[in-house]
Amino acid sequence: MTAPAARALPDTLPAAGTSPTPTGPIPVPPPGSPRIDVPALTEVLLGSWAEVRRAARDRVARPELQRVEDLTVAQHRERVFTQMQLLADEGVSRIMLPESLGGPNDNGGNLAGFEELVMADPSLQIKAGVQWGLFTSAILQLGSREHHERWIEDAMSLRTPGAFAMTEIGHGSDVQSLATTATYDAETEEWVLNTPFRAAWKDYLGNAAIHARAATVFARLITQGVDHGVHCFYVPVRDADGALLPGISSEDDGPKGGLNGIDNGRLAFDHVRVPRTNLLNRYGDVAADGTYTSPIESPGRRFFTMLGTLVQGRVSLDGSAIRASQLALEIAIRYATQRRQFTGASPTQETVLLDYQSHLARLLPKLAATYAGAFAHEELLHAFDDVFSGRGDTPEAREDLETLAAALKPTSTRLALDTIQECREACGGQGFLAENRFVGLHHDLDVYATFEGDNTVLLQLVGKRLLADYTSDLKAIDAAGIGRFIAQRAEALSRRHTPWNRLVQNASDAGSARRSSQSLRSAEFQEAMLTERARLKVEEVALALRSASGKAPDEAAAILNKHQVELLDASRAHADLVRWRAFTAGIEGIADEGTRAVLTDLRDLFGLTLIEDDLAWFLLDGMISAQRGRALKKDVLRLLWRLRPHALDLVDAFGLEPAHVRAPIALGAEHERQEEAAAYFRRLRASADAPVSEKALHRARRDEERRARSRS
Amino acid sequence: MTAPAARALPDTLPAAGTSPTPTGPIPVPPPGSPRIDVPALTEVLLGSWAEVRRAARDRVARPELQRVEDLTVAQHRERVFTQMQLLADEGVSRIMLPESLGGPNDNGGNLAGFEELVMADPSLQIKAGVQWGLFTSAILQLGSREHHERWIEDAMSLRTPGAFAMTEIGHGSDVQSLATTATYDAETEEWVLNTPFRAAWKDYLGNAAIHARAATVFARLITQGVDHGVHCFYVPVRDADGALLPGISSEDDGPKGGLNGIDNGRLAFDHVRVPRTNLLNRYGDVAADGTYTSPIESPGRRFFTMLGTLVQGRVSLDGSAIRASQLALEIAIRYATQRRQFTGASPTQETVLLDYQSHLARLLPKLAATYAGAFAHEELLHAFDDVFSGRGDTPEAREDLETLAAALKPTSTRLALDTIQECREACGGQGFLAENRFVGLHHDLDVYATFEGDNTVLLQLVGKRLLADYTSDLKAIDAAGIGRFIAQRAEALSRRHTPWNRLVQNASDAGSARRSSQSLRSAEFQEAMLTERARLKVEEVALALRSASGKAPDEAAAILNKHQVELLDASRAHADLVRWRAFTAGIEGIADEGTRAVLTDLRDLFGLTLIEDDLAWFLLDGMISAQRGRALKKDVLRLLWRLRPHALDLVDAFGLEPAHVRAPIALGAEHERQEEAAAYFRRLRASADAPVSEKALHRARRDEERRARSRS
Repeated sequence: MTAPAARALPDTLPAAGTSPTPTGPIPVPPPGSPRIDVPALTEVLLGSWAEVRRAARDRVARPELQRVEDLTVAQHRERVFTQMQLLADEGVSRIMLPESLGGPNDNGGNLAGFEELVMADPSLQIKAGVQWGLFTSAILQLGSREHHERWIEDAMSLRTPGAFAMTEIGHGSDVQSLATTATYDAETEEWVLNTPFRAAWKDYLGNAAIHARAATVFARLITQGVDHGVHCFYVPVRDADGALLPGISSEDDGPKGGLNGIDNGRLAFDHVRVPRTNLLNRYGDVAADGTYTSPIESPGRRFFTMLGTLVQGRVSLDGSAIRASQLALEIAIRYATQRRQFTGASPTQETVLLDYQSHLARLLPKLAATYAGAFAHEELLHAFDDVFSGRGDTPEAREDLETLAAALKPTSTRLALDTIQECREACGGQGFLAENRFVGLHHDLDVYATFEGDNTVLLQLVGKRLLADYTSDLKAIDAAGIGRFIAQRAEALSRRHTPWNRLVQNASDAGSARRSSQSLRSAEFQEAMLTERARLKVEEVALALRSASGKAPDEAAAILNKHQVELLDASRAHADLVRWRAFTAGIEGIADEGTRAVLTDLRDLFGLTLIEDDLAWFLLDGMISAQRGRALKKDVLRLLWRLRPHALDLVDAFGLEPAHVRAPIALGAEHERQEEAAAYFRRLRASADAPVSEKALHRARRDEERRARSRS
Repeated sequence: MTAPAARALPDTLPAAGTSPTPTGPIPVPPPGSPRIDVPALTEVLLGSWAEVRRAARDRVARPELQRVEDLTVAQHRERVFTQMQLLADEGVSRIMLPESLGGPNDNGGNLAGFEELVMADPSLQIKAGVQWGLFTSAILQLGSREHHERWIEDAMSLRTPGAFAMTEIGHGSDVQSLATTATYDAETEEWVLNTPFRAAWKDYLGNAAIHARAATVFARLITQGVDHGVHCFYVPVRDADGALLPGISSEDDGPKGGLNGIDNGRLAFDHVRVPRTNLLNRYGDVAADGTYTSPIESPGRRFFTMLGTLVQGRVSLDGSAIRASQLALEIAIRYATQRRQFTGASPTQETVLLDYQSHLARLLPKLAATYAGAFAHEELLHAFDDVFSGRGDTPEAREDLETLAAALKPTSTRLALDTIQECREACGGQGFLAENRFVGLHHDLDVYATFEGDNTVLLQLVGKRLLADYTSDLKAIDAAGIGRFIAQRAEALSRRHTPWNRLVQNASDAGSARRSSQSLRSAEFQEAMLTERARLKVEEVALALRSASGKAPDEAAAILNKHQVELLDASRAHADLVRWRAFTAGIEGIADEGTRAVLTDLRDLFGLTLIEDDLAWFLLDGMISAQRGRALKKDVLRLLWRLRPHALDLVDAFGLEPAHVRAPIALGAEHERQEEAAAYFRRLRASADAPVSEKALHRARRDEERRARSRS
C-alpha cells in the first residue's frame, strides 16, 4: 500500500545536508490589507440560535458522546443507544415540545442543536432524529392531545424507543404507493394492520432491528370498503423485554456503508390489531361505527399536509451537511498550511500544499460554497421556525418552506460528499486514516443524499414548483403584459441565436479586459447572470412542455421525461441563485469592513465558479461573450490567490474547537514533526560529518572540467 | 433513517385496487435493429490474457476468498492473511517469476490475474500486491541472482511476509526527499539503517503492523562521506515468533477508510545493522572497503531507473479500477431495469428506473467511459508486458509505458470512485446496504486515488512529459518547419479570437442541424476535436512557460505554479484522447456488425460526453460553433435513448457471474418481490372485497354533479 510517484515537478534533488525543511511563517495577509474579524464572523455563522448551538457544541465535545473507531455493528449500536439515553436524560430535545406539553416550542433551536450532533457521531445524530424528529414528531404533529398525553413523555425520555415506519422495500420516495393496509374492524373497534407481500415490508427504519418498542406506521386507511389513502398509526412492536409482539416480524438490515450505530431494519405486520384510537387522527378520523371524517376534504391535499412535517428532517440535514463540510475543510485546509511537499518556489524549502495552485483550486471553491450554504441554511431555519412556531403558518409559507428545503437539502448533501472526498484526497494517505475523520464522515453522510427524500426526487419537486409558478405567472399577467412577455421572449431567443453581438455587456466591455474583469466581480453582474439563468432554464422546459398539455397522462409523462435532465438542471440553477443571494445578503449584514471585503471575494469566487461550471450554457445562450468567458477563468484563478492569505481565518471562523475537530493532522502533529526534522537538519549542517551528495559532487566535477577546458 | 420525498412527478394517486404493478417485458432492441453478440464481446473484453483471467475469476468465485462484512479490523486482517496463504499455496503469483527462477516470466498474465482479485476483496488484492508486486518484485528487480536465491522462494511462499518500506510520514509521493539513512560501516562490513526523526518513519506499509518478517527499505545510501541517494535494502524486522527485532519499532496505522484487511503500519530503525550484501545492488553497489559503483552514472537517471519497477502497481490498479467500475455498473444497471418507481409513462404501471432520462444520464456515460477504460487498459497491459518481458525493453518504451500508466491510473481510479458513488446513489437505500457491494467497493477503492502515486502528482508527471515532448518537437523541426508551425499558431490564435466564422465546419454545416449532428457522431470529428484539444492545451501552457526559461529555479517554479491547473487539465485531455483512441481501435478489431454498431454508439457517447464536459473550452477556442454546441447536447440525450435497449447486453458482456456480483439486488430479488406484488393485486382485483379509493369516489361524485348541472 505504498509506492508513490517516482517523479514530480521540479526534479531537483536537494543536497542531503540541506534537505528541504519547513521554515518561515505561514502566509498571513500583508499589513494594511483587509483582515477578517474572526470572533465576530464566528458569531455571524452561529446565527440566531447561537446559544443553543454553543450548548450543543459543549455537549459534542464530551468524549462519551463521540464516535470511536473499529467497533462491530453490534457494539456501535449499543454505544449509540447508551448515548441516546444520555441525551434523553439531559432533555436535549424537550425544547421542541409545544407550550401545551410544557415546552418552549423552540423548533428552530431544536434543529440548530440537533445539527451540531453530526460532529460527535452522525449515527447518534440520525438515531436522535429517528426518535425525536420522526417518531415523536409524528405523534406530536399528526396526533391529538390525548395521543400526546399517552405517548409523548415516554418517547421523549426514551422509555419507548420508536421506529418511523413509512418507507417500504418496494416504495421509497414514492410514499403515495405504499401498500401496507390498516383496515377498520367496527365489531371490535380495532385497526388490522397488514403487510400484504414482501415488497410492502417497512424497510431501512432506524430502531426497527433491535430497540423499537413502538412504531408510527404509515398504512392505507380502509374503512367501510373505501381506501382513504396513507395515514399514520401508533403500533406497539416489542414488549418490555424486547420480544416482538404477536404478528410483528422484524429483520435486520445488517451492515451498511455508514451510520452503523443505528439498528436499521424491517418490520412487517400480520393482521396486527390496535385500538381505534391508535390512529393519529389530526387530519383524518374514524368513528366507532367506521365512518371516516377529515378536516381536509381533498385526499391529495390531506396527504401532503400530513407529510408536510417531514420537512423538519430535510431542514436539519441541510444544516448538518454544512457543518460536516466545515469540519472537513477545517481539517484539510489547516493541514494544507502545514504540510510541505516538493520543492516548488524555493529549491531548499518545500512548499506548503496550500501554496500549490491546484490545491487552492481543489479546496477554496468548496470553502466558498460551504459559506454560501451556511448563510442559505440560516434563512431556511428561519423559514422553518416561522412556520412551525405557528407565527407564520400559512399554506403559502409552508409551500415555500418545502420548496426551499427541497432545493437546499440536495445541494448541501451533495456539497458535503464532494467536499469530504476532495479533502480526504487532498490529505493523501493521512486522509485515509480513520483518526483524521474524513472517511468516517463520508461513510456516514453518504446516505444523506438519498434518505429523507432522495436528492433527485426532491430536485424534481423543486422543478415542478418552478414550472407551476412560471405557468401561473403567465396566467396572472394581462393582455398588455402578455404582449410584453412575448416581445421579451422574442428578444431572448434572437439573442440566443445571434450570440452576444446585441448585448450591452459587450459594448461596455469595449475591449478592456481589466474593466471586463472588474465587472465580472460586481454583484450586479453575478446576480443578473444567475437570475437570468434560473429563469431561462425553467422557461425552456416550460416551452418544451407546452406540447404535453391536453395529452393523455402517459403521453404527457413521456414528454416530460424527455426533458427531465433539463428540469433537474433548472432546479439546481434555482438552488444556486438562492444560495448566492443568501451569501450576498449575509455579507450585507456584517459591519466590519475587513470581514466584508474578504467575504465579498469569497462570494465572488462562489458566483464566478457557479458561472464557470455552466459556462458553455452561458456562451450558447449568448449571455456571456467569449471575451468575458476567458476573463472569467483567469479571474477565478486570481481570486484563489487573493483569498489564500485568508484561508486559515476563514476556517477559524467556523469556531470549531479541538474537541470537535479531533483529527491529529489538524491539531499540530504535522507541524511538530516538521520542526523536529528541521532541527535535525540544522544540527547536521552545523556538524562535521554531514555527507555530501553525489549529485553535488557530479556538479562540482562538471564545473571543474568546464573551468579546466576554458583554461586550456 | 426513513421519511422519503412527499411528492414527485406526476402525482396521480393510483386507485387502491389497481395499485401500480410491474408488467411487461424489460425493453430489448426491436427486431431488425443491431444486437450485441454478447459472448463474443465478452471474449474481446477478456483480452489477450483471457485464460489467466478466467482462472482468476474461478478463484474469485470461491467464498473462502471473498470479503465478509462486519469484521473488526483484527478479524479482517486475520482472514485476509489466511486467504493470502491459500493464494501462496496455489502458486498464484509464480507466473511472474523469470526463467532463471523456473517461471514463465508472464508479467502481463500476472497482472491480469491480480486485477480480478478486486472482486473477491480489495484488501486481499492489495495485500497480495504488497507481498508479491512490491516486496518480492523489489528483490527481483533491484537485487542480484544471489538475492533471488536467498529470498525469493520464501517471499513467494509467504514464509517471509514482507513490507515495502518506501513512503515516509513526511514524504509520500516525493520519494527523492526520503530521510531514512543507510550508512556503510567498512569496519564490520555492515549497513546501519537509521530513522533520524519522526517524519522519517516509514508509514502506510502493508504488512508492517503485524505480519511482516522482513522489509525492502528505501534509504539514502551513505558511504565514505557521500550520499548516493535512495537505494533499497533487505532488512529483517521480526523473528519467527513475530517479535520485533532489536532496533526495529513498529506502530499500527489503525482503522482506515477501507482495506481494513491489511495491517498497514509504520516502521522505524534505530541504528539497525544488516550485512553489506543486503543492499539490493543491481543499480548501485558498495565494495567491502566502502567504494561505491553503479552501472548508471547519473544519480538522477539511476534513481528513476530503480523506481521504474513501480509502474507495475499503477498498471494493475488501472485494470482493477476498471473491473470495479464494471461490477458497480452491472449491479446498478441490472437493478435499474427491474426496479420500478412512480408512475411515469403509464398511470397504472410504474416506470423502471432506467427508463427515466435522468437515470440514463447518470449511468450510461459512466458505462461508456468504463468501456473506453477497458480498451485502454488492454493497451497499457501490452505495453507493460512488452517492456517487462524484455521483448521491447528500451528506454523510450519504458518512458512511454510510465507516461501511459501515469495518465491512465488517475483517470480510471477517478472513474471508479465516481461510478461506484453514482451507482450507489442510483440504488437509493438498497445501495447503502453493505450486501449490495457499492459501499464496500467505494471504501476500499478510495485510497486507489492517492496511493501508488497520488493522482495529482501522476498527472503532473504526464504534463511534464507532454511539455518536454512539445519542446523537443519544436527543436526537431527545421527552419521551414518552424515557419509552418508559426503560421499554424497564428492561424489558431486568430481563430480563437474571431470565433468559428473561419472554420470549415460551419460552412459544411450550412444550417442543417441534422447534418451537423451526423457529423458530430463521426469518428473523424471527435478525433479531430480531442486531438486538437490535447495539443492546444499543452501548447498554451508551453507558451505561457516561455517566460520561465532562464529564470532562477524559484522564479521558474512560481511561474509553473501559476499554470498548474492548466497543466493538469492538459494531462487529462491527453488521457481522454488515449482512451478515445483505444476505444475506437478496439471497435475496429471486432468482426460482428451488430456489436460494432452498438459499440460505435457507445463510443460516440463517450466522445461527445468528453466534448460536452469541456464544451466551454471548445466554444471559447472557436473549435465548436454555438450551433454545434447546441446540437451536441441534444445528440448526447438522443444517444442515451438509442443505447437504452442495449444496456443489459452491455453489462452482460462483462462476463461477471453471480458469484462475482453477489449483490442481491442484481440477482433477481427485486424482480421476485415485484412479481409477488403483482400477483397480489391481480387476486385483489378479481375478488369482491377490493376497496375503492376515496379519490376515485371524489372523481365519480364530481362527474355526477357535473352531469346533474348539465341536466338542470
